[in-house]
Amino acid sequence: MNEHRSVIALLTDFGIEDTYVGVMKSVIAARCSASIIDLSHAVLPQNVQHAAYFLSTAYRYLPDGAVTVSVVDPGVGTPRRAIAVRWPRGYFVGPDNGWLTHVLRDDGHAGDRTGEVDLPYGWEAVELQQAKFWLSPVSSTFHGRDIFAPVAAALVNGTPLVELGARRLTLVVIETLHATSENGTVHGHVVHVDHFGNLITDISADHLSDRFTVTVGGGTIEGPAESYQSSEPVIALIGSSGRLEIAAPNASAARLIAVGVGEPVTVVTRRTLETGPATG
Amino acid sequence: MNEHRSVIALLTDFGIEDTYVGVMKSVIAARCSASIIDLSHAVLPQNVQHAAYFLSTAYRYLPDGAVTVSVVDPGVGTPRRAIAVRWPRGYFVGPDNGWLTHVLRDDGHAGDRTGEVDLPYGWEAVELQQAKFWLSPVSSTFHGRDIFAPVAAALVNGTPLVELGARRLTLVVIETLHATSENGTVHGHVVHVDHFGNLITDISADHLSDRFTVTVGGGTIEGPAESYQSSEPVIALIGSSGRLEIAAPNASAARLIAVGVGEPVTVVTRRTLETGPATG
Amino acid sequence: MNEHRSVIALLTDFGIEDTYVGVMKSVIAARCSASIIDLSHAVLPQNVQHAAYFLSTAYRYLPDGAVTVSVVDPGVGTPRRAIAVRWPRGYFVGPDNGWLTHVLRDDGHAGDRTGEVDLPYGWEAVELQQAKFWLSPVSSTFHGRDIFAPVAAALVNGTPLVELGARRLTLVVIETLHATSENGTVHGHVVHVDHFGNLITDISADHLSDRFTVTVGGGTIEGPAESYQSSEPVIALIGSSGRLEIAAPNASAARLIAVGVGEPVTVVTRRTLETGPATG
Repeated sequence: MNEHRSVIALLTDFGIEDTYVGVMKSVIAARCSASIIDLSHAVLPQNVQHAAYFLSTAYRYLPDGAVTVSVVDPGVGTPRRAIAVRWPRGYFVGPDNGWLTHVLRDDGHAGDRTGEVDLPYGWEAVELQQAKFWLSPVSSTFHGRDIFAPVAAALVNGTPLVELGARRLTLVVIETLHATSENGTVHGHVVHVDHFGNLITDISADHLSDRFTVTVGGGTIEGPAESYQSSEPVIALIGSSGRLEIAAPNASAARLIAVGVGEPVTVVTRRTLETGPATG
Repeated sequence: MNEHRSVIALLTDFGIEDTYVGVMKSVIAARCSASIIDLSHAVLPQNVQHAAYFLSTAYRYLPDGAVTVSVVDPGVGTPRRAIAVRWPRGYFVGPDNGWLTHVLRDDGHAGDRTGEVDLPYGWEAVELQQAKFWLSPVSSTFHGRDIFAPVAAALVNGTPLVELGARRLTLVVIETLHATSENGTVHGHVVHVDHFGNLITDISADHLSDRFTVTVGGGTIEGPAESYQSSEPVIALIGSSGRLEIAAPNASAARLIAVGVGEPVTVVTRRTLETGPATG
Repeated sequence: MNEHRSVIALLTDFGIEDTYVGVMKSVIAARCSASIIDLSHAVLPQNVQHAAYFLSTAYRYLPDGAVTVSVVDPGVGTPRRAIAVRWPRGYFVGPDNGWLTHVLRDDGHAGDRTGEVDLPYGWEAVELQQAKFWLSPVSSTFHGRDIFAPVAAALVNGTPLVELGARRLTLVVIETLHATSENGTVHGHVVHVDHFGNLITDISADHLSDRFTVTVGGGTIEGPAESYQSSEPVIALIGSSGRLEIAAPNASAARLIAVGVGEPVTVVTRRTLETGPATG
């Protein structure tokens, strides 16, 4: 697979009712030739943790060389840093506010640290400072249009990262919900409720034994199920991003259990009552 | 018009809040160069009938050679078949669960049969079995990402259908709401409520006389209206997919009449009281 | 920047649940090779003023040569005119019902006039009449699919404007909400509530002094704020389209103030109590 900086992926909290996303795409189309992929525009408003979660479900699938732009930017118009990052598989553009947290953690680099974390090997970052790549004037409320979209276009057009601003050696990593283990019990949380009402947790498959019992919202579920098809009203299974997920066959688990993001979820290994002598 | 396998059309029940659709597009963009058309991602969850309806409104307009991928897949992770189909105007990829029902019926081929129906002349189908075209590992909950998107990309890249799996001679056709005629009365149903609140029925224009009376939700409507502009609060007209549609000028018929999908709709030919001698 | 008629921008009230937008894109893809930008499909149903507002936020950012298609068309199927327009920066295609009002007003051309307004210098317009560029048959309810999409494709393919129909020398301009000034008080309105709950007004920055007091929904706000970050619950600032905007930091102003489109907003210059001698 060749690197081709001709895909721009967008991740925002703009929604799609307004023209905000369309205007960003217009700015991009006026400046370069790129295919645009909407990762999601339904990040919860101003919720950088949610943006980081969404990116964690998607970044492994992006084409090499893709320029991913995230605009979940509660600090727009304040002195928060705007950055562009080159990592081994492409580029990231947006505010330096923590949306890259899971990408930095997934390879074990960031560990549990938060705050300013050193760049991993093979990464480069700059603080965006060169206004000649931006729209003019720059508004104080829509840097997605005025800075990030034109910078993404500049990268697609082959602009070297270092021409965009001053080198940075750290990136911001934020605290996110994450599961912990204690005395054989995994303590996690619901981190996302999807379109189907599936409750997606921060408990990864590595934390789970072959058979386990999940407690959430006052009830228990025996897991794992193999698929969404089941005669049980509520099931627990390993979802498509490798995390424990609570689902309801042909229904919404979120509605049945009436819980949302942040809800605690605990998992214990299920002991099997052996009713006869084990064989083999 | 040349065949060009460079358009991929997507039809899912994924919604657009999550990254599911964006991840499928990422997988596609990493593997081929194609324009992507979102037919709809608002198929009612797990509702294959609704997917079949949406496809019926769109398939005639697809560019020749388009690869249409449908992922409305309540059986994902169970042994339900996954298929790729070549038909005279392009390709279909998805679960073999009935979403092609209207395409197979519209040319009269499938008749009223349901279940396994022989392929029409000029069609070919395979059961997807060649894992080398898929992502690895394959999850049990997201074949849209792991199987259908990469298979669609393989077709865009020119892979012959037969390399994707084993030949099938039948496709699944499902029961769908459809109008019947009896003693001059057409008995149909609301099959879709659109964004405007228009009630779209399964009664095609062929079933209708020049002037008719529609009964729905306890009220009657004289039809047809010529356009959405009318002084009547509720009108009946032939909609853009050639079906009887109940609408409210500048308002939502679904809200005014308070009915939804499945609601019975009957139509009788309207007798005109001739007040003078007919001429000509 | 070269003119390249290879971008088609869409602005409709179709929503994205149905296949209407996907079908328009299918018709376009079958007939030409163009990148498509969705400006918005959430124009309030049949609300041409809202379409005109959305276009006002976006048109300056479109690539040169773009073909912008608007289908907010309450008069579809009636004898309302369908038009294609060449203006110095591209093309517009849609019903002649006033969605171009702000574009025609922004350069001062249309003034406060409504009704039929002469074309500005450098503009050309035709009434769409040449059915050979359309789909056949033409439905009475979906000209977006049957007329506007194929006409946009024809323009992308280089068809001269004059081949599409008969020249027109005027375009329809409609009444829209707009701010007025009287005795130092600016009287405006909320013209849009965005995804974040920001209240966007028809009061442009030119109308505002350095410091001002806004009255809306029974409360007052001292402005302007510099960004969305503030310890105040509700703020007033110049938004990204150069208009006065009322926002709530990390919350929805529309929910806090409980007002919607059409709500009156007044602004007066704020007198500063000088508590000491001015310096410099």
